[in-house]
Amino acid sequence: MSQKSPAPLLYADTHASADMLYFGRVEVHDPFIALGVGGRTITVQSALEFGRVKKTSAFDVVLPREKWLARAQEIYGPKAGVAEIIATLAGHYRLRHFRVPDDFPGSLYVKLTQHGLKLAFADGMMFPEREIKTDWEAACIREGNRLCTVGYAVAERILRAAQIKGRALVHRGKPLTSESLRFALETAISEQGGNPQDTIVAGGNQACDPHDRGSGPLRPHELIIIDIFPRVVKTGYFGDMTRTYLKGRPSEEQRKLVATVRKAQLAATRTIRAGVDGRAVHKACTDCFAAAGYITRQTKDGAVGFIHGTGHGLGLAVHDPGRMSPAVSYPLKKGSVMTVEPGLYYPGLGGCRWEDVVQVTATGTKPLSKHPYNWEIR
Amino acid sequence: MSQKSPAPLLYADTHASADMLYFGRVEVHDPFIALGVGGRTITVQSALEFGRVKKTSAFDVVLPREKWLARAQEIYGPKAGVAEIIATLAGHYRLRHFRVPDDFPGSLYVKLTQHGLKLAFADGMMFPEREIKTDWEAACIREGNRLCTVGYAVAERILRAAQIKGRALVHRGKPLTSESLRFALETAISEQGGNPQDTIVAGGNQACDPHDRGSGPLRPHELIIIDIFPRVVKTGYFGDMTRTYLKGRPSEEQRKLVATVRKAQLAATRTIRAGVDGRAVHKACTDCFAAAGYITRQTKDGAVGFIHGTGHGLGLAVHDPGRMSPAVSYPLKKGSVMTVEPGLYYPGLGGCRWEDVVQVTATGTKPLSKHPYNWEIR
Repeated sequence: MSQKSPAPLLYADTHASADMLYFGRVEVHDPFIALGVGGRTITVQSALEFGRVKKTSAFDVVLPREKWLARAQEIYGPKAGVAEIIATLAGHYRLRHFRVPDDFPGSLYVKLTQHGLKLAFADGMMFPEREIKTDWEAACIREGNRLCTVGYAVAERILRAAQIKGRALVHRGKPLTSESLRFALETAISEQGGNPQDTIVAGGNQACDPHDRGSGPLRPHELIIIDIFPRVVKTGYFGDMTRTYLKGRPSEEQRKLVATVRKAQLAATRTIRAGVDGRAVHKACTDCFAAAGYITRQTKDGAVGFIHGTGHGLGLAVHDPGRMSPAVSYPLKKGSVMTVEPGLYYPGLGGCRWEDVVQVTATGTKPLSKHPYNWEIR
Repeated sequence: MSQKSPAPLLYADTHASADMLYFGRVEVHDPFIALGVGGRTITVQSALEFGRVKKTSAFDVVLPREKWLARAQEIYGPKAGVAEIIATLAGHYRLRHFRVPDDFPGSLYVKLTQHGLKLAFADGMMFPEREIKTDWEAACIREGNRLCTVGYAVAERILRAAQIKGRALVHRGKPLTSESLRFALETAISEQGGNPQDTIVAGGNQACDPHDRGSGPLRPHELIIIDIFPRVVKTGYFGDMTRTYLKGRPSEEQRKLVATVRKAQLAATRTIRAGVDGRAVHKACTDCFAAAGYITRQTKDGAVGFIHGTGHGLGLAVHDPGRMSPAVSYPLKKGSVMTVEPGLYYPGLGGCRWEDVVQVTATGTKPLSKHPYNWEIR
């Protein structure tokens, strides 16, 4: 953990804060105190978590909360709480200046300021080094993406086995639904050590709302988007991939849509290298879509076309630092890991998204995901 | 949604903030703006989320982020962001005072204050009404607990079927592990519409660290704690139950431990009614343990005995507002839903916890969980 002045201070649970997970390398489900002093990382844990955190975390020092609360109460009176424990620790370690993440709890910020501490917001990244992935981290993300392919293998097997009966898909005598397909592929991922969260299995018009998880019967001859972003339970890192399928016979419009999105994905990937602005990568996609005649616009029911960014950082959070979108300037960094996921969405015609993951190098990209793009299933 | 002055203002994703989920009744995975104006709830959503939130959320008004960002940029310049969108909205609705949750992002708090807004921290509960569960909410939690019992049924079936071979438990020709038992019961819960998170299946000394999820082979003649807290996918509410098992033959010490914890759970439950302090409920447990000769103390490897609180609120968060512990005074409220989960943990002997869920009434409790306490499996 690099130590820049001022010292880092966090108060969060690792469910909400990837920074905290990065800092201590241990999952704790209630908010807790962590700080850096000199080269050492220090945390305060209740008796409930003390033993486990001491045994399994990367923290150099684990302090018992009960004892430090008692100390804080001696100084600040019986109502002492989290703020007073931090103030007591700051006094003990002779620190007054801290760096805190932008999402540091506001009420705690105000109380600590009243106790005379100076807190500076990180303004973007608490640990800039979190953006640059080590080889070990890249391997963890690769494993997350391997878990995605486990899911795709299951989905493809089921879609192949399913029968078309009129407007329905039938599998093992039952209508094939978003829910049943999701259950089957998530179970396979769980069995191999993944924790799949909110997997999207959305067909037809549902797929045109990129954050609709999908529900109800899947239909033949309609595009089906499957977006899987499982967490590797052992390490906490995520995979994130998207594949599009169609069971039955695609129309020419559907073929063109799918081919164009894949073309945009390749164009975007070719644009990526260290130093390039994420906006330029996004523009590679929009140029490709414009050349093929696909227009992005607002309708009264929402936006259609290419309605999201081209990619985001991936790591201990599904949305790690880093964006490739028109909204922000973001110079790509060597070693950062990004999703590349253009998509097109037109209710009536359907939606398509291809998503892979790359690590940025000085000259281009290193792929961290691998799975075919065979989308037509007869 | 009750409207007290000042108006509520939130900026969070619903993964991290149960308050936000309560406010808008829709899951959104990136932080977004929500506020109350008069009797109406208002949110700002990007094109990516707009349609889905408009269709499925409880927000009265959904505003397009792109348009409000453009407005904010007209006023504050091209670097305008979240703070400036909020300031623009505040101007539009002629509001200057807001109530924000204690975990409102600190950097945003500072920026909004600089823009002349007055933010008051909720100091505890953002929506005090979240603590009191309606009949519908109680039914959602009951469903969460039903999903727990689906898990226990699977665990019991497997433990019954497992064979004792020396120090190992063997099921279907393979060693029975925490991981395989967890996978089997979580799969059954997922299939019925639950999202089980970090289920604890911990045997022997692992179970003495109440937040150790458990790993590796489960052993015969050792206490096994199974703590399940699945989210009901459809509603977002949690169940939370714990059962303790032993495959093989318990010792007299193990029998006494298990019986005493159950006795404490019954004593605690009898103590609960509206108006009683959570500390009194906790004391019912500690009295029971003291009478049976069980001592809670700190050792050099961590605490042993009764090392956690007796219960917590349960709802849209696993740890909802409300605690029954020695650390805080908390008067129980009519309609609040609490876990009742005493436990004893002694490395060498093992750990036991029984956890059920009750709704507090004027005169006592209404059970929201139901499953037998048969723990000896031959």
